[in-house]
Amino acid sequence: MTEPADLVARVRDGDIRLHELEQHADADTAAAARRLYVEEETGADLSVAGEYAFDAADAASAIENMVGAIQVPLGVAGPVPIHGGEAEGTFYLPLATTEGALLASVNRGLSAIRAAGGSTARVIKSKMTRAPVFRVQDVAESVEVVEWVRANTDKLKEAAEETTSHGELLDVTPYVVGDNVFLRFGYDTKDAMGMNMATIATEAASAIVEEETPASLVALSGNLCTDKKPAAINAIEGRGRTVVADVRIPRELVEERFKTTPEAIAEVNTRKNLVGSAKAGSLGFNAHAANTVAAMFLATGQDAAQVVEGSNAIVTAEAREDELYASISLASLEVGTVGGGTKLPTQAEGLSVLGLRGGGDPAGANADALAEVIATGALAGELSLLSALASRHLSSAHAELGR
Amino acid sequence: MTEPADLVARVRDGDIRLHELEQHADADTAAAARRLYVEEETGADLSVAGEYAFDAADAASAIENMVGAIQVPLGVAGPVPIHGGEAEGTFYLPLATTEGALLASVNRGLSAIRAAGGSTARVIKSKMTRAPVFRVQDVAESVEVVEWVRANTDKLKEAAEETTSHGELLDVTPYVVGDNVFLRFGYDTKDAMGMNMATIATEAASAIVEEETPASLVALSGNLCTDKKPAAINAIEGRGRTVVADVRIPRELVEERFKTTPEAIAEVNTRKNLVGSAKAGSLGFNAHAANTVAAMFLATGQDAAQVVEGSNAIVTAEAREDELYASISLASLEVGTVGGGTKLPTQAEGLSVLGLRGGGDPAGANADALAEVIATGALAGELSLLSALASRHLSSAHAELGR
Amino acid sequence: MTEPADLVARVRDGDIRLHELEQHADADTAAAARRLYVEEETGADLSVAGEYAFDAADAASAIENMVGAIQVPLGVAGPVPIHGGEAEGTFYLPLATTEGALLASVNRGLSAIRAAGGSTARVIKSKMTRAPVFRVQDVAESVEVVEWVRANTDKLKEAAEETTSHGELLDVTPYVVGDNVFLRFGYDTKDAMGMNMATIATEAASAIVEEETPASLVALSGNLCTDKKPAAINAIEGRGRTVVADVRIPRELVEERFKTTPEAIAEVNTRKNLVGSAKAGSLGFNAHAANTVAAMFLATGQDAAQVVEGSNAIVTAEAREDELYASISLASLEVGTVGGGTKLPTQAEGLSVLGLRGGGDPAGANADALAEVIATGALAGELSLLSALASRHLSSAHAELGR
Amino acid sequence: MTEPADLVARVRDGDIRLHELEQHADADTAAAARRLYVEEETGADLSVAGEYAFDAADAASAIENMVGAIQVPLGVAGPVPIHGGEAEGTFYLPLATTEGALLASVNRGLSAIRAAGGSTARVIKSKMTRAPVFRVQDVAESVEVVEWVRANTDKLKEAAEETTSHGELLDVTPYVVGDNVFLRFGYDTKDAMGMNMATIATEAASAIVEEETPASLVALSGNLCTDKKPAAINAIEGRGRTVVADVRIPRELVEERFKTTPEAIAEVNTRKNLVGSAKAGSLGFNAHAANTVAAMFLATGQDAAQVVEGSNAIVTAEAREDELYASISLASLEVGTVGGGTKLPTQAEGLSVLGLRGGGDPAGANADALAEVIATGALAGELSLLSALASRHLSSAHAELGR
Repeated sequence: MTEPADLVARVRDGDIRLHELEQHADADTAAAARRLYVEEETGADLSVAGEYAFDAADAASAIENMVGAIQVPLGVAGPVPIHGGEAEGTFYLPLATTEGALLASVNRGLSAIRAAGGSTARVIKSKMTRAPVFRVQDVAESVEVVEWVRANTDKLKEAAEETTSHGELLDVTPYVVGDNVFLRFGYDTKDAMGMNMATIATEAASAIVEEETPASLVALSGNLCTDKKPAAINAIEGRGRTVVADVRIPRELVEERFKTTPEAIAEVNTRKNLVGSAKAGSLGFNAHAANTVAAMFLATGQDAAQVVEGSNAIVTAEAREDELYASISLASLEVGTVGGGTKLPTQAEGLSVLGLRGGGDPAGANADALAEVIATGALAGELSLLSALASRHLSSAHAELGR
Repeated sequence: MTEPADLVARVRDGDIRLHELEQHADADTAAAARRLYVEEETGADLSVAGEYAFDAADAASAIENMVGAIQVPLGVAGPVPIHGGEAEGTFYLPLATTEGALLASVNRGLSAIRAAGGSTARVIKSKMTRAPVFRVQDVAESVEVVEWVRANTDKLKEAAEETTSHGELLDVTPYVVGDNVFLRFGYDTKDAMGMNMATIATEAASAIVEEETPASLVALSGNLCTDKKPAAINAIEGRGRTVVADVRIPRELVEERFKTTPEAIAEVNTRKNLVGSAKAGSLGFNAHAANTVAAMFLATGQDAAQVVEGSNAIVTAEAREDELYASISLASLEVGTVGGGTKLPTQAEGLSVLGLRGGGDPAGANADALAEVIATGALAGELSLLSALASRHLSSAHAELGR
Repeated sequence: MTEPADLVARVRDGDIRLHELEQHADADTAAAARRLYVEEETGADLSVAGEYAFDAADAASAIENMVGAIQVPLGVAGPVPIHGGEAEGTFYLPLATTEGALLASVNRGLSAIRAAGGSTARVIKSKMTRAPVFRVQDVAESVEVVEWVRANTDKLKEAAEETTSHGELLDVTPYVVGDNVFLRFGYDTKDAMGMNMATIATEAASAIVEEETPASLVALSGNLCTDKKPAAINAIEGRGRTVVADVRIPRELVEERFKTTPEAIAEVNTRKNLVGSAKAGSLGFNAHAANTVAAMFLATGQDAAQVVEGSNAIVTAEAREDELYASISLASLEVGTVGGGTKLPTQAEGLSVLGLRGGGDPAGANADALAEVIATGALAGELSLLSALASRHLSSAHAELGR
Repeated sequence: MTEPADLVARVRDGDIRLHELEQHADADTAAAARRLYVEEETGADLSVAGEYAFDAADAASAIENMVGAIQVPLGVAGPVPIHGGEAEGTFYLPLATTEGALLASVNRGLSAIRAAGGSTARVIKSKMTRAPVFRVQDVAESVEVVEWVRANTDKLKEAAEETTSHGELLDVTPYVVGDNVFLRFGYDTKDAMGMNMATIATEAASAIVEEETPASLVALSGNLCTDKKPAAINAIEGRGRTVVADVRIPRELVEERFKTTPEAIAEVNTRKNLVGSAKAGSLGFNAHAANTVAAMFLATGQDAAQVVEGSNAIVTAEAREDELYASISLASLEVGTVGGGTKLPTQAEGLSVLGLRGGGDPAGANADALAEVIATGALAGELSLLSALASRHLSSAHAELGR
């Protein structure tokens, strides 16, 4: 058996390259050798990172040049009843975070939602997108390509779907900017987040476009997808799951739990989440939805970089006669319960806490449910923060009146 | 000694609440009991999550209701020479991700940067912000408050800085929307990411504003900060570190490494990162900067939700006579090397790989350097993806010509 | 016959209100009386404003409380050959402006386009939108309404089209934010700009929605239309005419006319129109498209406030082997050749200069052609300004090299 | 004396070019000849356009290739008392528009404001900007240039102010994107809108930057100004006048005038102007501010293309105990009372109606006052439309309850 130190020596000799270690030893030994090498080079100690609890060979589909694992503290919040389109029942929410007080805040919000009978949640739209950009000669050709695409969507559908056993091409929306033609392909990717599936299918469809029109593919993603960048197109048209959740909390419950009133919460929401975000030129009209999204994404094996779009959320709060109405609408929550990071052991356990590990029945139901649960968690985080602000504001207002 | 099962029984009896377990047992036992309880409630198996390698009591500052840890695979990319304002030398970059091929892609880009002699990087601005919203009676009062603030910034500075040993209040920028006054406080928070410091200092300063003007505080954050939401104010004025990095790659090197030309890379950048993002109504003019930002944030204990602002990046690429010029400008990269998640063992090891664990000398130097390293990593990721697209585009163009 | 002075006396006596003068005298006398009254009240002299050349009674459909007219200088630029989808031939462009040098700039650009053989232009999409907002009780109802709308678009179409002889309802796109349901109705309004038509038709359709679903109409426009506000939804999905125009100018012509090179123009476009606008958080990736749009809107009786959306334009410029390629893509140009201000005498003359007064054959052709002509004018304005910048830049670059 | 027909013959002979006619005849004759030529070429009749009431020679500073004038109907709304920083007194507002019902709507709003005692208005910031873009070699040079600018603002101020008798350079804000350095120069341009002044002064300052740093000027405007494009930088930081106006209307007055309640108006504002605009990815959180801005711009000789930025407005409405509070905040209203179109006869009369023609005392006071009046007009337009929607909504709600 090869020892890590021997492998390091061979790397130093230029015999092996650092990223090729797995070709010369089992995955655990390779990782150990790499840790050793990096420790020697940088003076760092990587011993805790080396205490990973997954199968190093399995992790090869998630990372290259592995040295170990980062450990992010995991907690649970809840329980909370959810009346969802797919999420139906009472849930404990797993959150992984390093931001103290976040979990407690979500928990406090969930507790109020529970006391109010639970949240209502719905996935409104489910569509993973990929938008290649093609080059043509001039706008006359742009129009020609667009017309061809409109007339031949069936052909594109056929080519795209040949590459996937589960995915369905729902539609293709063309956009033109001069001699650039962008085609936004939208897929139903069931329980998978679906980026890879969408990319592969779009590549096949793009080949047809290149064959049958004058268009030449420049990039499989032309940034109208839009993946991992804040973009109005996602905030407006959605990407992944477009999901809404709300709750109606009786006035007395607001007063008892939150020490404030529906009116005060609505006012904070308007001044901060609506007017403040408007003035900031923001696409996020919420207080801290990204916190919950990030923590649940980490806990369930989602793509951390997609927290960017996950924060495209609008929160509303209104004082109704006898109750507070609060809602959150997440336009582009890209989630899956199969594939990618969901297969890693701790992440799979996170999904199991929700009862949503693996494919749903019908296909897509688990990912829908996951979106509904995350939306409820994010709503709880908003309620908790808004009410804390409102209650402080209220007491300061009272103090003022008392002068 | 208390057993987990006993604690669970007491939770079931309503004797203890789930989040109070730490009051009745040591942190590890409490976490074990919570795992057991959640396993019973949900049918999940949390055994791997229970194999955490940090001190559960220490983790209490990062999470509540702890049950264990999520493990995210960690790898290293590099080495790469960086000619930074603070990052000076050769670095291995730690990245934690579950997205296969990401690390390899960054590595490939870093390799080309290394062959070209390294990147140049600079932190242009360093300012953590907090922007409370105040309510006044009408616009006449709004103006009165703004004028008071302008005339009394020293008073606010004094109040703010009394709350912190390190932080400095740099400026206060007022914005008015009707009867809402937003004051954007900007701090130098040295090696800390600085949100908590900024919040506490702003609370003290806000109390002065309330005392001496007719303004009444509605929320300590009025969303013009802007934290964890995509917002133009951050993309324009910056938040945390505003950092730029670039590289000049000789033409032959581009051709050899990337099998393409500077012209082709520049074209892909224009059509995808500039025109595509323009059409998408995006604040992110890059291909996948968030990927590298997220992976390095996780590996070094940064706040995962702040990847949202981290993706406010503009990438440029131009074909110069003998070289490719490529740059990335990240407007709002919020990073620290002390406090928060940086104290956890694996995250501290991640920082150690960079030689940037703890406070810098002078104070702030380590966080500046970290920003410069992340910018270089993100630039590498862009180069790798753009050149892959360009090379495919080029070969398809060639194939076309060859017909 | 009533004298203006008598009417003024009656206004002073409180006998008549200022806006009711037309009920007591013919339209010209009423306007004269109003001028007299305002002159007395404010000390202003309105004699030139009183020299209007339209029928005051006719103007009543365009304004209330009329006192006269504002005169905006009108010029012509061109001629320019346009190879459009509907605009086919050679055109003189009417522009009304008070900004010196604008017309000369457009003229210079058109002259180059003419020398290059003309522009190519196409209307890609034509859809006037109106998006009412409805209130429901919770997100479950939101989804219920959305589903009803999807299943009953035919009913809505029928109700909408009963109100109009020309318009057609093309589609209805639902958007949900919590308990708000927005329905974006899209119409083909032929040669009319179509806002009124769309509003009336949407009112009828909204009544059906209210009758058959739990939704309650809050506002006939819920700002997702979006009318007269800069909005990504228009920049992405279009409103009114989505139109593109381009030109290919041989290299020698660029050098001769513009004293610069395709490369230099492309560079200015990238640094200013793409990167600069990206950094500004802009929806307008152009130099001054709004100038031409405003001047042609005024000259042809369009709605001046819709210049706001008219400026949602992306300009591209690229140096091809033997030529400069330049394009403009205007996402939301709301124009008509019938109705509204197009009926006023000078505005009708402006349309006549283009040969586009009144309804087209087939219906819609004239408004399409108008959009193509405006796009060509805006492209000319861009070329002229970009090349002026490039030529100055080039000479300064030369001077530098010569040092 | 030369006859138009003779001139036309010489144009046809290629002896004179169409835009050179003024060199061969007086301005009126030249315009007549141009009309004749265009009529012959296009078949249009330009007789009404020829009935202009200004001095054709004077108009040469506003337009080239003049043929006549477009006439836009002019009306007056008001009177309204304004308690402004500079606008103090009672005003009649001139509006020029072709959109029927607009003037009546503004008038209705002003009438309610008048009944409530008038509006309060303030100019918060006054700064005309110009932002050239410079090219450098790499980010190290970018930083070098930025540091030079920060250390030498006095030098730039001196160079800039040598070009102007009135203008003052207030500040220079640098922004960096890779090898692009943008310098946003901010000027106090007193009563002038100030674009030309700012451009000329910035040109002089840019020459110093080029001389003393490695920066090379690419374009005098790098689109961070931002002129005539919707841009978050203007909506956040302002351009021209940043102006706010509000009104407090007693509850009974709301009910009597508007047949609705403060609560209903606030609800419409939230759902439409805040939530709707948020979902639309808009920078305009208002109902139709651009309408009033455009109509008053036309009536007072402002630049019609700057309506684009004029529509960056946020409207708030709240139900207070005994009153409705409503405000409008216009971030970037670019106005002047001297120069440009303000010199034309009818436009000058429009300014006279406001008592704001020419320079103010102190300098800048008239343009400030104009901004405050326009803000009040726009607020009136909002109140009128919001209350109409609310009253219809209310009656429909009543009808529902009555079922």
